Amino acid sequence: MNGRNKEHTAFEIAIVVPRRTFKEGDDICDSVEFLVSELQKVGLILERVTGLADEFIKLAAPLETLGRVAAELQIRKPTYFGMDLRFEWDEVEAFVRQPDGSLFSWCERFRCFHHIIYGIVNRKESVVTLKFEGKEFGWKPGEPLLTMLQSEGVVKQIFPLHDEVKRKWLLRNWALNWRDLTRQPIDEIYSYFGTKIATYFAFLGMYTRWMFFPAAFGLTLQLIDFGSWQFLVLPFFFICITSWAVLFFQFWKRKNSALLARWRKSYPIEVDLGYKVMDTGSSSVQSSVELTKKSGADKRKKAIQRAEWFGHLLRFRNDAIVISSIICLQLPFELAYAHLYEVLVSDVMKFGLTALYLFAIQYFTKIGGKVSVKLIKYESNKSIEYRADSLVYKVFGLYFMQSYIGLFYHALLHRNIMTLRQVLIQRLIVSQVLQKLLENSIPYLKYSYRKYTAVWKKKHECGSSTGKIRLASRVEKEYLKPIYSASIGEEVEDGLFDDFLDLTLQFGMIMMFACAFPLAFSFAALNNIMEMRTDALKLLVMFRRPVPRPAATIGAWLNIFQFLIVMSICTNCGLLICLYDLEGKWRMDPGLAAILIMEHILLLIKFGFSRFVPEEPAWVKQNRVINAAQAQEMCSKQILRSFSGRKIE
Amino acid sequence: MNGRNKEHTAFEIAIVVPRRTFKEGDDICDSVEFLVSELQKVGLILERVTGLADEFIKLAAPLETLGRVAAELQIRKPTYFGMDLRFEWDEVEAFVRQPDGSLFSWCERFRCFHHIIYGIVNRKESVVTLKFEGKEFGWKPGEPLLTMLQSEGVVKQIFPLHDEVKRKWLLRNWALNWRDLTRQPIDEIYSYFGTKIATYFAFLGMYTRWMFFPAAFGLTLQLIDFGSWQFLVLPFFFICITSWAVLFFQFWKRKNSALLARWRKSYPIEVDLGYKVMDTGSSSVQSSVELTKKSGADKRKKAIQRAEWFGHLLRFRNDAIVISSIICLQLPFELAYAHLYEVLVSDVMKFGLTALYLFAIQYFTKIGGKVSVKLIKYESNKSIEYRADSLVYKVFGLYFMQSYIGLFYHALLHRNIMTLRQVLIQRLIVSQVLQKLLENSIPYLKYSYRKYTAVWKKKHECGSSTGKIRLASRVEKEYLKPIYSASIGEEVEDGLFDDFLDLTLQFGMIMMFACAFPLAFSFAALNNIMEMRTDALKLLVMFRRPVPRPAATIGAWLNIFQFLIVMSICTNCGLLICLYDLEGKWRMDPGLAAILIMEHILLLIKFGFSRFVPEEPAWVKQNRVINAAQAQEMCSKQILRSFSGRKIE
Repeated sequence: MNGRNKEHTAFEIAIVVPRRTFKEGDDICDSVEFLVSELQKVGLILERVTGLADEFIKLAAPLETLGRVAAELQIRKPTYFGMDLRFEWDEVEAFVRQPDGSLFSWCERFRCFHHIIYGIVNRKESVVTLKFEGKEFGWKPGEPLLTMLQSEGVVKQIFPLHDEVKRKWLLRNWALNWRDLTRQPIDEIYSYFGTKIATYFAFLGMYTRWMFFPAAFGLTLQLIDFGSWQFLVLPFFFICITSWAVLFFQFWKRKNSALLARWRKSYPIEVDLGYKVMDTGSSSVQSSVELTKKSGADKRKKAIQRAEWFGHLLRFRNDAIVISSIICLQLPFELAYAHLYEVLVSDVMKFGLTALYLFAIQYFTKIGGKVSVKLIKYESNKSIEYRADSLVYKVFGLYFMQSYIGLFYHALLHRNIMTLRQVLIQRLIVSQVLQKLLENSIPYLKYSYRKYTAVWKKKHECGSSTGKIRLASRVEKEYLKPIYSASIGEEVEDGLFDDFLDLTLQFGMIMMFACAFPLAFSFAALNNIMEMRTDALKLLVMFRRPVPRPAATIGAWLNIFQFLIVMSICTNCGLLICLYDLEGKWRMDPGLAAILIMEHILLLIKFGFSRFVPEEPAWVKQNRVINAAQAQEMCSKQILRSFSGRKIE
Repeated sequence: MNGRNKEHTAFEIAIVVPRRTFKEGDDICDSVEFLVSELQKVGLILERVTGLADEFIKLAAPLETLGRVAAELQIRKPTYFGMDLRFEWDEVEAFVRQPDGSLFSWCERFRCFHHIIYGIVNRKESVVTLKFEGKEFGWKPGEPLLTMLQSEGVVKQIFPLHDEVKRKWLLRNWALNWRDLTRQPIDEIYSYFGTKIATYFAFLGMYTRWMFFPAAFGLTLQLIDFGSWQFLVLPFFFICITSWAVLFFQFWKRKNSALLARWRKSYPIEVDLGYKVMDTGSSSVQSSVELTKKSGADKRKKAIQRAEWFGHLLRFRNDAIVISSIICLQLPFELAYAHLYEVLVSDVMKFGLTALYLFAIQYFTKIGGKVSVKLIKYESNKSIEYRADSLVYKVFGLYFMQSYIGLFYHALLHRNIMTLRQVLIQRLIVSQVLQKLLENSIPYLKYSYRKYTAVWKKKHECGSSTGKIRLASRVEKEYLKPIYSASIGEEVEDGLFDDFLDLTLQFGMIMMFACAFPLAFSFAALNNIMEMRTDALKLLVMFRRPVPRPAATIGAWLNIFQFLIVMSICTNCGLLICLYDLEGKWRMDPGLAAILIMEHILLLIKFGFSRFVPEEPAWVKQNRVINAAQAQEMCSKQILRSFSGRKIE
């Protein structure tokens, strides 16, 4: 275990087994003892903690164990000479270290852990009989031990553990560090939570920072009276805001690729799992040479092409289902609510209606989410991140309708800016505050409830004589904490879904009605500063440590943001017409024409600007190019030699 | 010269030297004889042809000579096991052959030839004295022989030669093969002319094939009266046309990448030449390892970033100059012409005005082109193709104004569809026919004139007694043919510039005024069929064989086409309003609103469709991915070994 000396390894995974009522001690057939010994055999370091109702096996891995598994998993890692290569334990010096000095990122470590503990397979030819609390069951040859134990209920859960040292550091320097308004220790967040969550916080930080400009602008508009120029101020604001949004997302893309370069993460080679055509044994060079021969390649090409178009068709069908059901089912429902709300006179009735509505949409979104999850299972998406993106688009459609159709209704019906403004304030402030409260209190309540039940049970068992019983171990507390999961379902997305959904809905709200209520940007800026802190606290204090995800961009959300920008150009033009054409007597004469022209210019800005600012900074590109060229240079000759060598054989 | 047995090598390059009046024969100091012997020394095969006024040295290279030079040039070529590697003559079997069976593409061969003949350098330490027609001059040490001879006027020109066998084949099976309307032997065109020209013809063929649909639709609209549905027909046509255009370009991108995959051409790694920061000796692995260390990398990153933004700034300034000069200088000029043309009554005056105008714009575009070429010299563009793209954008702006501003003027002023239609017919037919005639007759006239002068001179010299003198050798005929060059300047673009410009201007004309004149598509389809043949003939018969260019896409023109689609959405909506709102009494009521909504839907189609059809077919992507993965697999371990080996040293 000399690997341990080189690098500190904390306990990072916990396995939960029930606490046994009878101590059987040295019985070798006891399944928990057996599991422990097997885990020790594969080179893991264990620590067993007994909790109130369960026992926890904390796992740590010495660097060498991880390294061997990484080599077995053929994990590709960047090397100092530029190329991404399969990890080899013997050549460990060649591989680039993480920003925090460790060899593997948290995501890679988690993958290795997973592989190790699920890799314990019965290698004997006979069934091994194991016991647990008197019950006996057989471990069949070739079956992973953990899967068997999970299905038998011996292993209750496996979850990643917080690293107390790093968690405290982050708590002090990030979540509770109120002096740095938008600056965050992104590298540390990355090494603690993985790429996807770090990307979210980087985005949130940059978004908030950029938000200060329109917030200040909006505030100025609110405070200062521009006299006779007043009528020009709003269009000017509109143009500035649109340019701001377009530029922001372009610069975000740059920042994203710069971040990836810093984290030494290259875009993964996507091996398409969706197309079942290619699972032939084409791993040897010879067969690939054969494949390039005419007839076989043509046939294969056609098969792939068919699969590709079939996939598009499926995707298209699903999108059509979702869109049509949104339009046919959700739209009438939302309109009915908005209309009823308008028609009703008594406040009590209104309140009742709203309560009923809120109750109904809870179910509505849940059903929608479930249907979407079902639908995407039929799609042949290439990877889990593609699946997640497809889900995001579908569910966002639902939320889009839900959030904005009422606003559109108000805007169109009343053509009255003041009413719209009131509704906006109501939504922005009330919903944001309420949501934040709910978001943060529900997990805490859950945790408290579970803690209470656990303690209560214990008390009940021991009789009430022992006095106060408390949760002694940290790992048990973590076990009782809720999982960081999405509200629509845990299968595809984690809690980031809800956080991003909040951000997009807020963005849509402030952008689409920017001309009606410029002050909204200030609210949003304040809200985002709060959001950063509460999200950080949520992750560090309220939830279990989330399972790391390798996704390197904000994915589908970027496209949704872009879509919202285009929408906002159209709606703001509509708003401006409403604002300036009070008597409804405009023709194609100056005003209307001017606004239409402005709309077209803005659309041009939207689609033109993205050409001016390249998505990848030049230095990132250059690094990539130089590295690739160097690596090529190095191995070119060797590969050729080995090729001709093989041929002679 | 065993390489010659393996593969037939035709004479592909010609060097033109003046025909000497005194035969000096075996004088070793004669520079032409010296050049010939030097060329033979480097392994080229020569044939000398004496023409009327000049002597021609035809060059061919055995495969082995080319191979050695290719290895020296470190040309990267695809191998059978997927990876692009530097060419090595010893491992020639590992490299993928061209579709026509030869090892090197025409573009690679040309590059090798160029390197060979310009690589003849004086390796001695003293100046070698050479004579030519009594004149003496010194060949300094380290100076390329050919550069020196060119500057002394001994070598008049170097140009690529037609390959008579292949040329005849193409003439028979492509240019004069009238049975295949739009089908072309693209692979043969590729191996004869190189990637860029083959891509042009592939585009033209696919464009013409797709054009049949709107042509038929437009014809139907012209011929059939839809009765009471007539008013719905045009909007429907408009929607179909827009979708057609969007889909076409999306599928073209797919086709383009499929073609590249077939030609085994991977996108070249762009090593940025524009940024001067990186020309350090960072070729060794050690130095790159050092560069990744903090301080140096940061400094370098900042320098690159500065250079990047400075480049953007320069480009932006130049674009601003071009746009503002177009708006401030060209727009008033064009409007003045259009207005004067309207105001004048007498036909004679109109004719005179048009003649004057045509004369003026000749100069205008020439000046514009020259200014653009000057401007892009100040830009730090990364490669020659980037430069060409930048030029294309700038010059297209000029032509766009010139071609369409008059039409817009007519459309807006008269709001009369019939007048607009007349102007369109006039422009489409007259200008196309005239242009075609001019395009094809001018080079022929040039050629005839030069041939005539050559023969006349010869006659004059020999006295008129010898009777008829004819151009005996094919190479001399080719020498007298004009070069395939752009009308705006030979430096950056070749003749493809004019051909693409024709296509885009035509596309803009038929798309932007589609609703005014649906029949235009039929004219365009007919015209394109003609265009394919005439362009083929032009290249095969009229011009010298063009210098091959490696560019693999249609580059800037694709963006211009996309821009024209967006423009056409806007203009057609305007046209529809003009058509249906004859009395000008529309408000935001049904009609106007409907058209505006339609416009927005179409814009959505434009920017949404591109997401549905991926630009790269799945099979191309998969090939790429599998190949890359295989190659990585092969060399991963070796590279790691060699790395640790180096470290120990």
